[in-house]
Amino acid sequence: MITPLVNPERKTWEDICTRPAIKADELKPFIEELFSEVAKKGDEALLYYANKIDGYQGDTFALDAKAWEDMASACPADLKQAIETAAKNIVKFHEGQPSLNYKSDIADGISCWQEERPIPSVALYIPGGSAPLFSTVLMLAIPAAIAKVPEINLFTPARKAQEIHPAIAFAAKLAGVKRIFTLGGAQAIAAASLGTQSIPKCFKIFGPGNQYVTAAKQYSQQFGTAIDMPAGPSEVLVWADASSNPAYAAADLLSQAEHGADSQCVLLCDSQDFAKHCLTELEGQLQQLSRMDIAEKSLANARFVVLEDLQAQKDFVNAYAPEHLVILSEQADALLHDIFNAGSVFVGPYSPESAGDYASGTNHTLPTAGFAKAFSGVSTLDFKKRITFQKLSKAGLENLATTITTMAEAEGLDAHANAVRIRS
Amino acid sequence: MITPLVNPERKTWEDICTRPAIKADELKPFIEELFSEVAKKGDEALLYYANKIDGYQGDTFALDAKAWEDMASACPADLKQAIETAAKNIVKFHEGQPSLNYKSDIADGISCWQEERPIPSVALYIPGGSAPLFSTVLMLAIPAAIAKVPEINLFTPARKAQEIHPAIAFAAKLAGVKRIFTLGGAQAIAAASLGTQSIPKCFKIFGPGNQYVTAAKQYSQQFGTAIDMPAGPSEVLVWADASSNPAYAAADLLSQAEHGADSQCVLLCDSQDFAKHCLTELEGQLQQLSRMDIAEKSLANARFVVLEDLQAQKDFVNAYAPEHLVILSEQADALLHDIFNAGSVFVGPYSPESAGDYASGTNHTLPTAGFAKAFSGVSTLDFKKRITFQKLSKAGLENLATTITTMAEAEGLDAHANAVRIRS
Repeated sequence: MITPLVNPERKTWEDICTRPAIKADELKPFIEELFSEVAKKGDEALLYYANKIDGYQGDTFALDAKAWEDMASACPADLKQAIETAAKNIVKFHEGQPSLNYKSDIADGISCWQEERPIPSVALYIPGGSAPLFSTVLMLAIPAAIAKVPEINLFTPARKAQEIHPAIAFAAKLAGVKRIFTLGGAQAIAAASLGTQSIPKCFKIFGPGNQYVTAAKQYSQQFGTAIDMPAGPSEVLVWADASSNPAYAAADLLSQAEHGADSQCVLLCDSQDFAKHCLTELEGQLQQLSRMDIAEKSLANARFVVLEDLQAQKDFVNAYAPEHLVILSEQADALLHDIFNAGSVFVGPYSPESAGDYASGTNHTLPTAGFAKAFSGVSTLDFKKRITFQKLSKAGLENLATTITTMAEAEGLDAHANAVRIRS
Repeated sequence: MITPLVNPERKTWEDICTRPAIKADELKPFIEELFSEVAKKGDEALLYYANKIDGYQGDTFALDAKAWEDMASACPADLKQAIETAAKNIVKFHEGQPSLNYKSDIADGISCWQEERPIPSVALYIPGGSAPLFSTVLMLAIPAAIAKVPEINLFTPARKAQEIHPAIAFAAKLAGVKRIFTLGGAQAIAAASLGTQSIPKCFKIFGPGNQYVTAAKQYSQQFGTAIDMPAGPSEVLVWADASSNPAYAAADLLSQAEHGADSQCVLLCDSQDFAKHCLTELEGQLQQLSRMDIAEKSLANARFVVLEDLQAQKDFVNAYAPEHLVILSEQADALLHDIFNAGSVFVGPYSPESAGDYASGTNHTLPTAGFAKAFSGVSTLDFKKRITFQKLSKAGLENLATTITTMAEAEGLDAHANAVRIRS
C-alpha cells in the first residue's frame, strides 16, 4: 500500500516534506460574525451558538464546584491512579525548567535584571468529540499551575446537560484548573478572547481543536490574545536502521495514524528491506485496531523514505522537522547532537511516542507542520513572560551619557538625548 | 493642553488604557497579491516592487562584502565608539540569560531532558525613513548571534543605488549579521518568508516597520513563518510621586512622544500639583525639540492620570501593561514586586528610557498595546527553540506500561496501547 521512496534526490525533499495546508480563510465570515456577536451580546450570543451548534440546553457555562466534584468522583479507580502517576511525572519534569530570573551588573552604577511573571489569566481548550482528551488537560494545566497563573480556565463542550467526561473533571481538579466552562468550539475561543458577563477575558489560549477552533484562535490574535502555537495535524517520523525492530516501527506509525485521517506518518530507514518488513508488520497490526478506518485513511498519505547515507538521513530529519521523532536505532544516543529541528525526540527502542503522549513527563503539545524549526513545545515558559528591569545611579548614567546622546542624535532623536542631559 | 484625569473610577480604566487599533485588513488585497507574485516570480517580482515602491535601481539585493565594509568605515569615529560601548553592554546582559538545558530523572529507567537549538535562519528587518535605526540592529542581531543562529539576514531598504546608512552597516558587522539585503517594505517580508533565487527562506522575522511591513509579517504567519511579536505604536508610562522631579517626567514623556504621532504617553502621579508642574515642564521642553511637530501630535493623545491611592496606582500600571514603565520615585525599589505586566521597567530617577533604548544592556524590542500581559521583550530565547528528549529502558517502560495503556484505552486509542505492549 505504500511505495518506498529510495534515495530520493535532495531537490525532491521539499515536496516530500510538505504538509497539508490549513485553510482558515473560508471560515472567516462565520468567525468574524461570531466574534462581533459575542462582543455585542456577550453571554446571550454564547448561549445561542452553544445551543445551535452543540445542542447545549444549559443556561450557564461555569461549572458548579459540587457538580465538578461529583463528575470527578465518577472516574474509575484504575484510571484515577494512572492519571495520578502521569501527573506526578509531568509535574516532576516541568518543575525542572530552570528559572530565567537573573541579574547582570553591567558596570559601576548600572544594574540590569530580568524577572518572570505569570500571565494573569489563560484559557485551556479541550475538545469534545470521540476521545475525551484528559491527557491534554494535564499537559496544559500542570505547567500553568507551576507557572503560578492565578486564573486557569478550562473550556470544553457539553451537549444538552452541563456534563463533562469524569476523567476530564478529575484531571482538571488534580492539575490545578480554577474554573471549568462547559462551552466549546469557536464560541469558546471568542468568549475567552473577548470576555463576557460570565466568562473572564483570557490573555492566552492553549489547546487543540477542529478547524473552527483553529480559525478562531488565529482570529483572536487580532484582539491581542496570544495563542500557544500555530495548528496542524499531528505527525511522527520514525527513524530506523538495521538494529531496529520493524514491529516497533509499525506500532509507532500506527499510534500516530489512529489520531485522525490527516495525521502524517513518515518512516525513514536505510534499506528497502527494512521498509518492506515494516510494511508487512503495519498491515498485520492495522487489522487489530478499533480505529482501523481512521488509521487506514491516514496511511494513504504515509511516506516511507529510504536513504542509505547517514548524513542524508540526518539532513532529511532536520528538513522535515517532525513534531515527534522516534529514533529506534540501538545507537540513537550518538545521533542526538545532530538533531536541530524536532518537537520531541524518543530515544532508542523502548521509548515509544505513547510514553511521552501520556506519562513519561514531557509535554505532548508540540509544534507540527515543520513549525519545529522556529517553535517549541509547551512548557512553563509559555505561561509566563519576562520583564526586564534596570537601575542606574547618577554616576552610572553619567558614564553612559556620551554613548546615549551620540546614538540618539545620530538617529535624529533629540528628546532621547535631552532625557539624559536634564539629569546631569 | 492635557487635562488630568483625577481619581478616575475603575470602570473607566479600560477606556483609558485602550490603544489605537491596528487595521491590517484594508492592506490585505495588496499583501496577498505581493506574496503570490513573489511565490511565482521570485527575484523578478522583488525587483519590480522595489523599483515601483522605493525607486530602487539596483539589479541585485545581496550587499557585496567589500561594499558593506566600505559603507561601515564611513561611520564617524565617535558614533563607532558609542555603538561599540552599547554593543558591549547589550552582549553582557543577553549572555547572562540562563540556559534552558536540563535533565530530569523521572524514575528508574526513565530520563527526560530538554536542549536548546538555534533557529536555522532569521530575518531582521530595519526600516528606512527619517531615522536610521542602527540601535535596533544591535538589539536584534546581538541576541541572534549569542543564540548561535547560523544565518542572520538583515533586510533594509535602499533608494536608487544599493546604499545603506554607514551606522547600520557598522552595527550589522559588529553585531554578527551574516548577510545584508537592500530590500525593504512588505516585499522584504514576503521574500524572507517564502525565499527566492537570491534570498534565503527565513523561519522567523524580527523588527519594526510601517503598516505594510506589519501587515506582511502578520500574513507571513500563514506560511508557517514565526514573527517576534504583534506590533503596535511605542509607549511609555511614567509613574511619579512627590519625591520625583517633574522635569525628568516631562523629558521621558517627550522622548516617547518624538518617536511618532501615534506614540502613547501616560503620566501616572499622586497629585494634581505634580501633574500641573509636569505639564508646565512639558510645554517648555517641547519648544526645544527638532521633532516638535511629531511630539506635539503624539501629546494630543497623552493621558495624565492622578490616583491618590497607592494600591490604585499599582493596579492601574498592571491594567495598562506599558511597554516602558519609568518609576521616578525615590522609593521605586519597593514597588517592583507588585509590577506584573510591563515590557521593561526603569527604576528610580536616574534610569531614563533612553538608557535602555540604546546602551544599558536590556533589549528595546518590547511588547506594546497591552501585549505585555502575555508577551515578553526580545531575548536570546526568541532565536532558539527547545527540544525535549526522553529515553526509557525496557524496565522503565514496563514500570509505566499500565499507566500508559490505561490512559490510552480510556481515550479510545488502541494503537497507543499496542506500541507499549509490543515492546514487553
